[in-house]
Parts: sequence; structure tokens; C-alpha cells
Amino acid sequence: MTFELNGLPTRTKKNRSSGITLAIDKGYSIRQTEDFLETSEPYTDIVKLGWGTSYVSTNLENKLAAYRNAGIPVYMGGTLFEICLLRNQLDDYLRYLDHHDIGFIEVSDGTIRLSQKRKLDLIADLCKNFTVLSEVGSKNPENILAPYQWVDMIKSELDAGAWKVICEARESGTVGMFLPNGEVRSELIEEITHHIPSNDLLFEAPQKDQQIWFLKKFGANANLANIAPNEVITLETLRLGLRGDTLFDFYIPQNGVGQPIK
Amino acid sequence: MTFELNGLPTRTKKNRSSGITLAIDKGYSIRQTEDFLETSEPYTDIVKLGWGTSYVSTNLENKLAAYRNAGIPVYMGGTLFEICLLRNQLDDYLRYLDHHDIGFIEVSDGTIRLSQKRKLDLIADLCKNFTVLSEVGSKNPENILAPYQWVDMIKSELDAGAWKVICEARESGTVGMFLPNGEVRSELIEEITHHIPSNDLLFEAPQKDQQIWFLKKFGANANLANIAPNEVITLETLRLGLRGDTLFDFYIPQNGVGQPIK
Amino acid sequence: MTFELNGLPTRTKKNRSSGITLAIDKGYSIRQTEDFLETSEPYTDIVKLGWGTSYVSTNLENKLAAYRNAGIPVYMGGTLFEICLLRNQLDDYLRYLDHHDIGFIEVSDGTIRLSQKRKLDLIADLCKNFTVLSEVGSKNPENILAPYQWVDMIKSELDAGAWKVICEARESGTVGMFLPNGEVRSELIEEITHHIPSNDLLFEAPQKDQQIWFLKKFGANANLANIAPNEVITLETLRLGLRGDTLFDFYIPQNGVGQPIK
Repeated sequence: MTFELNGLPTRTKKNRSSGITLAIDKGYSIRQTEDFLETSEPYTDIVKLGWGTSYVSTNLENKLAAYRNAGIPVYMGGTLFEICLLRNQLDDYLRYLDHHDIGFIEVSDGTIRLSQKRKLDLIADLCKNFTVLSEVGSKNPENILAPYQWVDMIKSELDAGAWKVICEARESGTVGMFLPNGEVRSELIEEITHHIPSNDLLFEAPQKDQQIWFLKKFGANANLANIAPNEVITLETLRLGLRGDTLFDFYIPQNGVGQPIK
Repeated sequence: MTFELNGLPTRTKKNRSSGITLAIDKGYSIRQTEDFLETSEPYTDIVKLGWGTSYVSTNLENKLAAYRNAGIPVYMGGTLFEICLLRNQLDDYLRYLDHHDIGFIEVSDGTIRLSQKRKLDLIADLCKNFTVLSEVGSKNPENILAPYQWVDMIKSELDAGAWKVICEARESGTVGMFLPNGEVRSELIEEITHHIPSNDLLFEAPQKDQQIWFLKKFGANANLANIAPNEVITLETLRLGLRGDTLFDFYIPQNGVGQPIK
Repeated sequence: MTFELNGLPTRTKKNRSSGITLAIDKGYSIRQTEDFLETSEPYTDIVKLGWGTSYVSTNLENKLAAYRNAGIPVYMGGTLFEICLLRNQLDDYLRYLDHHDIGFIEVSDGTIRLSQKRKLDLIADLCKNFTVLSEVGSKNPENILAPYQWVDMIKSELDAGAWKVICEARESGTVGMFLPNGEVRSELIEEITHHIPSNDLLFEAPQKDQQIWFLKKFGANANLANIAPNEVITLETLRLGLRGDTLFDFYIPQNGVGQPIK
């Protein structure tokens, strides 16, 4: 039977270039992957195998196949890229991605130090063969970049060929765009998105309150990353105003917000 | 083989009217639902599909069937009721519940404002066809109701026909009966249960320390709601004194508590 | 294809006597157990069925069989031992373990009070038929033992026949070796491991920051306990320096840490 709620916000459809949900898989079994896809495939656009988890994975081939069969691009976390670069094993890494038919690559310097020139050269080079997600922001809570530095770096990386730029927060949501308590550095986001369209960005927002903040700021189709797979459904309800937190952000009743129903 | 511990508290059995555990499913796959039932069916009395998650569910029919086959009533979260009421789509919602053979309904105003008269009329009307769970308390941490208001509202809603009244806490356990840090507003619970039998209430208590507080206060068979499915086993051990936190609440050794075993 | 990172720390192999990961199962279904084993068997050395969860388990026989088939020893949490001792049902408990062919036993007094003499006698007696894990430290955050007491107790329990001694932290990581906020009582660990080889100990470290602390202190092959099953993969990446947090603890690049890559 049809049960259609009136006045829901319009969600983008796959393949989305905005309204993206990027989920982080940190070691699912094949069945867990299938279960995740059963419930969340329509709402999941990209999957990242977190940091170096793919290196210790016992089921990598089958897992990649499961995501591929569902039509969802999957890629390795940026830390694995950094680990390889640090060891002068970038060529090995690229062969590994090629062998596994991975079409996305993350170019990040959240842990290692990378000269800006090298980072931009890498992006320019890799975007010939990959969809490049580059990342800005440090995983070190004491490495605070000024807003103008974020803007400059993001612009340069988009110009160099990055498909979108990820704004760092980690799996925890306590660094980069966020204070150690998880609060959004809102003036930073204001500054960044004053200069750069929010659709060119992917905001890492693992915590529910962070997701809400971005949805209230940029609407139902904000690009959000580092979502725990078992929170993708919850995020989708937040996007549609189907949870208390965003209900009145995406639906204005006829007699106005805050008027009691008699 | 039989291994029976002496002196365990007496737990109520299904179908329970006290000692209820109400679990919140926020997007399980069918296999996850089956797994939950495998381990926790005897300890789970009611399942709520949290807020509007059922609306974005890809597996609703099969999931309802899984719970129904296990003999566990399942219903949609109160926020979905509020969303429909706000849109003047209550009739659509009732047809949807009827179509899915859902026998429980939650009547809440945690997010929307609803005149008391309308809420009581709705309860009185809906309890002709449904087992009504009504809910008192706001999801807005700044909307603090005085204890006498909780008592008045709960009494009126029971009188209007609610089977039991849910005391609000959200999935997080940080509003309604609780302070923003999750601590119980104990004087509020004292006041409410001075006037109303605790068995007419369902306390939302998602956090472990909150569950412990209610078990210490009302005993092994307190009615507890918003339990994460993967915490139902843990809750059952707390109810029976099989975890350190409540061990001495439900078992007094012969030589007294606090005496060392020689 | 082979993709081998250079310069990874050397991990011990099964059967490990150091580098142990002890996971805590608090109510998995059979399929969840199988899924956990699929991804994490090589990295999991011992499984504890937390506190009294085995007593309310609906699938105990099959679960024990699943772990046994994977070659992973499994045992019941120390609280169940304490519960039985308190009720004078130790004989029943031992028959229960024998019936289920459980080869490990935890001798703890985290919740009950047990005279030191009795505890040592029990360890000496039980180690004839079991691999004994004894545990030191209270689950009560107000019961703070002085460092010299930890050292004395651990030494005595190892002398009495304990295979290794577990240092208490609970599933939460907020008591015993840790402050209520989860911070390590580092001077306590210094004192303990000044007197006792860290390989004779199993550190309960459920929180990620705690795991990192022990890995930085004792290296990739620290013995860590109370790991959530779905965090074993993450822990393994921390052990190998495949996550930002420990990357530079286990790999020193040729041109030194902190030098930018040009």
C-alpha cells in the first residue's frame, strides 16, 4: 500500500553529486556487509574501508565484490595512502588498488607531513586514473589550521583535480572541524563555505549532533562522511525531518511552528 | 545439565504486565532481527521501530513478520504519529497501521505541541482499536515540566485509556526524566511514583546507569524502555543480579553484605 | 597478489603468550559469533562471556562449539565465579564448567570481598584442573588500592599458580587501573610493571585511548583484555601502526619523524 507523507524535502537520487552519505566500514564480515546493504543501499553513496583495516582484512575480495554488486564505490582510508607514501611504497599501493579494481583514492596528510607542492602534484597525477578525494585538516588536535589556510588548501586541491575535498574529523568527530568535545567550529565552516560551494566538500560528521548541525546549515542534501553503517538509516530520517531534531527544519506546518494543535 | 543459582529474584514471565523490556530497533536487517530474537526473545516484550525509521525501511513487511512470528508486539515510534498529525495525515497513518496489522500505537507530543484536550481525545478514541502507549515529557531539554504537571498528565492519560504511560528520555537518555548529563531527576520520579503505580509507567532508560537506578528503586521487574537490542541480555543480567552493579541489591548473603569470605 | 608493507612491527603468532587480545562477548547470536570469527579469528586469543551473561544465554552450547571449532578458548566472566562463591555453589559451578568442557577459569573479587588466604587457596586448587586467570582491582570506584597492594597481590597470585593476572577496568574502562574519566593511572602501571613483567599481566583496556596508551608503553604485543569483538580489527591496526594514533610509534621514516615529504 502507498503511504506518502506530504511536504518532505526533496532528496537527490543516485548517482548523487550532492546529498552524499559516505559510510565507514571498519571491519564488517560478509554477512554484516550484506545486512548493511539490505537496509541502507539506497541511502549510501560511497564506502570507505577505514584507515588500514583493509590490510588486516580476512575477507577483502569478497567484501569488495559485495559492495561492487550493490553499485557502491568503495575505497581505502587515507591513512593507508599516507603509510605507503611514508615508506616509498606508493607504486605498490597503486598496483594493489589496480588489482582490486578500486576507482577512488584518498590523498590525505592527516598524520604525515606532506609539502603542499607534493600533495597537489599527487592529486594532479592520480586524478588521471582515479576519482580523487583529497582531505584537509589534521588528526592532531593541537594542529589547528586558520580558516584562510583551509580555504587556500581546499581551493588548490579542487583546482588540482580533486573530485571533492573531505574536511577532517576522524571516526571520533573531535579534531579538524570540531573542538575536542565534538562541537562544530562554526566560524570555520562559515568561512570555508563563504569561499567554496558546500557541494564540493564532504563533511566528516560521525556524531549525531554534528550531522544535525550540517543539515540545519546546508539542508537535507548536505554531503556527510564517516557515518557509521548502522547509523545511515538514522541519518536518512534526519535528512527527511522524520526525527524530532530536524522535524521543523524541513516542514513548516500551515498554522506555523510552535502553535499547539487543538 | 541443570545449573540453577539459588536466591535469584523472581522474574515475571510473558506476557508480562510488569518487568517489561521495550527494545528500540532503529533499522535492523532481517538477519539482525532474527539474531536479536535468537538471543533475546524471552527477555523482550515489545519492540518499537524508532521515530520515522519505518518510513525509510527497505524490509518493513519481512521485519514485522519476524517479530510477529516471535510473538512480540511491534509498533512505530511516537514521532511518526506526531509527523502525521502535524500534516493532517492521521487517517493515512491509521490505514497504514491497519494494513500492517499493528496493534499498538504511541500517542506522544515530545516534539509537536498538542493541546491536552486533543491528546486525551485521541487516546480515548484510539484505545478502541489499539493498545495505546501515551508518552509524557518533551524531547526539548529546555522544556522542563514541573513534577505536578507530569503527575496530572499521566493520570489523565491513563484515565483516558492509555495502557501504560511512557516517561520520555529519547534514545540518548538526556532529556525528560534525565538531566543533560544523563543523571536521573530522582525527585521527579519520587513524586510521580508517589501518585501513580510504577507498573502503569514505562521508563525510558537507554543508559546502563539509568537502568541500574530504576532496578534499585523499583526492583528486578521495573518496566524499562528504549533499550538497545544488543543490550537486552545485559539488562536481563542486571535484573537478576548477575552483574556487579546489582549483585547485592538482589541477593543478601547469609553472613551479610560486605563481610569477607574466609 | 602480494602487498606487503615494509617495516611493520613483528606480531606474535598463535598460540600467543604475549600480544594477547582477549575479547568480551556479551550476548552474541551464533551468526554474530561466526561473523566475528570470520574477520577476527587470527587476532583473537581468548573470549570471555561477560559476567553472568552465559547464565541467561539461549545458545550457550552452540556458541561454545563455534569458539571451540575456531580454536579459541572461551570462559565465563569472573563475576559468575563470585556469584557462585557467595552462594556456596562453587561445586555446582565447577560441574557446570566441566560439563561444558571449559578449560579456563577466572578467580576474581571485583565485587565480593574475599580474604587473601582464601583467594590464593582457590587459585592453588583450581590451577590443578584449569588455566587460571586471576584478577586484581575493584569494580567499586571508591575502592582504591595503593600501588604496593596491587604488586603484592599480583605477585602472590602468580606464585599461587595463576597463568596471568588481569588488571581490572570493567567493560567501561572507568575503575581499577583507570580514573572515572577513563584516564590511565599511569604511576600505578609504572609501579606494577617495575616489579612484574608486563607479559604476566592482562590489561583490561576497552577504550581506544587506553589501548593506545598500553601499546605506546609496552609495544605492539601488549596483552589487552575486554576488547569489544567489533573493535578487534581496529586494535590490530593500532598494534601494527596502521592507524594515525600509533603510526609513528611503530615506524620511523628514513628522514625522521616530523619532516615533511617533499
